[in-house]
Amino acid sequence: MSHHTHSATLLIACPDKKGLVAAIANFLMTYNANIMHADQHQDRSENLFLMRIEWSLEGFTLPMESFAAAFAPIAQEHAMTWRVSLSTRKPRMAIFVSRYEHCLVDLLHRWRIGELECDIPLIISNHEDCRRIAEFNGIPYHVIPVSRDNKAQAEAEQFRLMEEAEVDLIVLARYMQVLSHTFVERYPNRIINIHHSFLPAFDGAKPYHRAFARGVKLIGATSHYVTEDLDEGPIIEQEVTRISHRDDVEDLVQKGRDLEKVVLSRAVRWHLDDRILSYNNKTVIFD
Amino acid sequence: MSHHTHSATLLIACPDKKGLVAAIANFLMTYNANIMHADQHQDRSENLFLMRIEWSLEGFTLPMESFAAAFAPIAQEHAMTWRVSLSTRKPRMAIFVSRYEHCLVDLLHRWRIGELECDIPLIISNHEDCRRIAEFNGIPYHVIPVSRDNKAQAEAEQFRLMEEAEVDLIVLARYMQVLSHTFVERYPNRIINIHHSFLPAFDGAKPYHRAFARGVKLIGATSHYVTEDLDEGPIIEQEVTRISHRDDVEDLVQKGRDLEKVVLSRAVRWHLDDRILSYNNKTVIFD
Amino acid sequence: MSHHTHSATLLIACPDKKGLVAAIANFLMTYNANIMHADQHQDRSENLFLMRIEWSLEGFTLPMESFAAAFAPIAQEHAMTWRVSLSTRKPRMAIFVSRYEHCLVDLLHRWRIGELECDIPLIISNHEDCRRIAEFNGIPYHVIPVSRDNKAQAEAEQFRLMEEAEVDLIVLARYMQVLSHTFVERYPNRIINIHHSFLPAFDGAKPYHRAFARGVKLIGATSHYVTEDLDEGPIIEQEVTRISHRDDVEDLVQKGRDLEKVVLSRAVRWHLDDRILSYNNKTVIFD
Amino acid sequence: MSHHTHSATLLIACPDKKGLVAAIANFLMTYNANIMHADQHQDRSENLFLMRIEWSLEGFTLPMESFAAAFAPIAQEHAMTWRVSLSTRKPRMAIFVSRYEHCLVDLLHRWRIGELECDIPLIISNHEDCRRIAEFNGIPYHVIPVSRDNKAQAEAEQFRLMEEAEVDLIVLARYMQVLSHTFVERYPNRIINIHHSFLPAFDGAKPYHRAFARGVKLIGATSHYVTEDLDEGPIIEQEVTRISHRDDVEDLVQKGRDLEKVVLSRAVRWHLDDRILSYNNKTVIFD
Repeated sequence: MSHHTHSATLLIACPDKKGLVAAIANFLMTYNANIMHADQHQDRSENLFLMRIEWSLEGFTLPMESFAAAFAPIAQEHAMTWRVSLSTRKPRMAIFVSRYEHCLVDLLHRWRIGELECDIPLIISNHEDCRRIAEFNGIPYHVIPVSRDNKAQAEAEQFRLMEEAEVDLIVLARYMQVLSHTFVERYPNRIINIHHSFLPAFDGAKPYHRAFARGVKLIGATSHYVTEDLDEGPIIEQEVTRISHRDDVEDLVQKGRDLEKVVLSRAVRWHLDDRILSYNNKTVIFD
Repeated sequence: MSHHTHSATLLIACPDKKGLVAAIANFLMTYNANIMHADQHQDRSENLFLMRIEWSLEGFTLPMESFAAAFAPIAQEHAMTWRVSLSTRKPRMAIFVSRYEHCLVDLLHRWRIGELECDIPLIISNHEDCRRIAEFNGIPYHVIPVSRDNKAQAEAEQFRLMEEAEVDLIVLARYMQVLSHTFVERYPNRIINIHHSFLPAFDGAKPYHRAFARGVKLIGATSHYVTEDLDEGPIIEQEVTRISHRDDVEDLVQKGRDLEKVVLSRAVRWHLDDRILSYNNKTVIFD
Repeated sequence: MSHHTHSATLLIACPDKKGLVAAIANFLMTYNANIMHADQHQDRSENLFLMRIEWSLEGFTLPMESFAAAFAPIAQEHAMTWRVSLSTRKPRMAIFVSRYEHCLVDLLHRWRIGELECDIPLIISNHEDCRRIAEFNGIPYHVIPVSRDNKAQAEAEQFRLMEEAEVDLIVLARYMQVLSHTFVERYPNRIINIHHSFLPAFDGAKPYHRAFARGVKLIGATSHYVTEDLDEGPIIEQEVTRISHRDDVEDLVQKGRDLEKVVLSRAVRWHLDDRILSYNNKTVIFD
Repeated sequence: MSHHTHSATLLIACPDKKGLVAAIANFLMTYNANIMHADQHQDRSENLFLMRIEWSLEGFTLPMESFAAAFAPIAQEHAMTWRVSLSTRKPRMAIFVSRYEHCLVDLLHRWRIGELECDIPLIISNHEDCRRIAEFNGIPYHVIPVSRDNKAQAEAEQFRLMEEAEVDLIVLARYMQVLSHTFVERYPNRIINIHHSFLPAFDGAKPYHRAFARGVKLIGATSHYVTEDLDEGPIIEQEVTRISHRDDVEDLVQKGRDLEKVVLSRAVRWHLDDRILSYNNKTVIFD
């Protein structure tokens, strides 16, 4: 699924009707596009058409700065919500972390070896703990302590840093603070969180302890976009692992770390690859 | 794990302290037991010792009818809850079913080819639908319609049939009626249910519809002992499978059937093999 | 993914080049097709374009008996290999079985409850064992004993029965005879076998015994199209399950049955849904 | 399964016969042992008894330096192979690595956060690439280039370093050199390798390329003890993940990395916890 030439990716959602595929394909053909991937989905109950289409920019005769204007008539005719992105423009990702470092270490390692194609201009934390890891990776590390009293102020500082850094995506890598509504509204579908349970089971605090108390035989982790309702946003990815009566809470925490790392990193990669369309508090993950 | 000679299996739960393994092993050695399997577990938070021990009856010099009397002193000294079972005595299992036949067909097939070592003296249903399947397997099929008004009476008839058939274990193979408290109390840790979700997520009605609405990426099934609290009993086994945005509710139902069959049949087999100890609303599954 | 209106499905493979999606979409639009699903894949190393496209026949203005003639110019221009199928024409499936009944029972149950949309005009076996199961399902059961000496003659009889029954697909549900090259050549990409290992590991005889001897920690099952080379045909689906040192060969056989059933039935369903394209001894499974 | 008090762990293998559990339990009881875990296994086909027993040293009245002498009579009587280890003595682990850093990074992170209880006195590599990672973790990094001509000499240098460091366990974290027989014989059951396939499938070179060419639907990774026969040693752990026709070789490599990390780290942890008994080219993993 990797791509080595420059490409553009178009994500579309609109009411379903006949002729959409042909209309889009013809538009691209007019400019000599070489389609590399096309994937679509119809949600019948919502009568929605959703599509991801990626084409090579080699030989594409429409300059991308003119794309919006050229595509507008089709988009309007079919009442499309759409966005286009270019493989030449690396997304800029901020990572938020508290004390648990495993997700941060995992993300940074994947970034370093090229699994995550993005820039990481900053890491924000409410604790000093992970500074050495940030420095090892050459990424500025900003400690902004958060308490009940200074939350608005702390977030203002976070906004300032992120704007300066032109951040597109925020990843909460076990960041143990609840974001304000102001924060969440500012970055719709652009904040990815990892919750250490198989949602909707054990939402909220201390999921491993509650999983242990309930005696479940599998534990899970869930990555999702953050919305105003805690742990209720659109689910991007989930994974589970088997546990037994021999595992105490500490074992669950350990086994869970492996889930959290994998589930969060998949969500981040798919987001960076423009493979996620979110609607109706659900996600479509294009192949 | 299969056994071809006659054996006895002892399940024990008691407060943990030193010397329990030696005490039990010595007791069995006195009568020349050949231990085939021994597995134990300590629950530290509860300070509980739990053990399953299986030995061959070949050469065992204590007649099993005298076992209880001989073991009583040890059991009393250590405040043990215990039970012993013999591989020569096949458990007798009743299956309850409504209209969905997949779990019933699966259980009966496993029984026919020897995966489940038990007798099945009767099948009870509130519908006629599965009669042909019961007859194909040579098992009496009793239809007892259940409505709001006749529940007590219907259960009385069920009790009568089960007593006549000397039933040890009741399996609810997608039986769509809630059992009364009277029923549940009558068969503690002896009623196994299959719930078509990954509990505690989506307990109660229509789990597949709710999983679809929530946009989860995995669906599950859970087998558990039935207690007074609906879908809250000790979990025996769980399994999940991956779904995607392409799956509608009907697809979830279809994928779920495969989970339900596997998860229910495992629970039944482990129960029949005396491998489950239930305490504190959890289960220990001995290997 | 289920469909309730009549539909047509087109499977295409051809050299990859620009404009294929537009050409196909435009062709269908000319006749007012309502595209229900479209999925495509490019194999870069082979420069191949592969597509599955399904559209509703409601309002489609091209009579399907004229489809081949109308599509021929496009197919020729792009050197396409293609086939089209109609949801109104149920495929006809023959099942071959020997003594192990689990896959047969599983397939027939799925067929009975509507998971597999096909007709099953006959079951062929080299043993009497499964006759009762066939009869319970109302399917003619033909016993054709096979030995070294009579193989050609036995296959001739099998061909006669299958031609009479107009069979499209042959499923080997643990049929323990190797088919002749003549047989295999007669039904290219139309014979599905289940092998009880994770191919290419343990191809050939006694895979569970060899898995036990090697001490693997997972066992598997593989469904594949049968080709001249035993267990070497294009893999359709695989699944594994965990085992431990506690499992003896008999346990592996038991756990493996659950894999075999699931893996074989998925392959059959995908084939019946025209979701498999086979090339280069591999398969593309369209979503 | 974690332990917070000092404990001793005894691993035993011997011919199976009656009374072994009682003999061992009684021996430990004599010295007032508080048994924390006991797990046993009988291999019937080999008539072998295998046991792992862990007890608290708190209140244990036999000084551990006298253990061997005290246990000798029982060990001799039953022809036991055995070893005992103390939680107070941390095993010393050497890591070998070449250029791929993911397993190294993963192991070191787990070690840093306490998942792996051991000392890591040195890392040996045939390349400079991973030096920065070693230094970040404060571990001496020795580069010993290996070629066809200098293998014996290079290994001599490796032996010298490891002896100096009193190494107990060697982990090959994607070390791309084949060890000599001399090397392997020197550390029986003490060298753990990760192979990037589901063994015995795709042993030897380029497993991901071969998995891609064969068109498998799952890829795997295998950790095993190194023996004289390449990729043929006792398997400790295996895991698989699903792939599809959309995944090219590069995708397999990326998905495989996640398997390799998990599968190798589990093997290392189990070895460090004295939970692995190897016999007959297989492993028993005690719970």
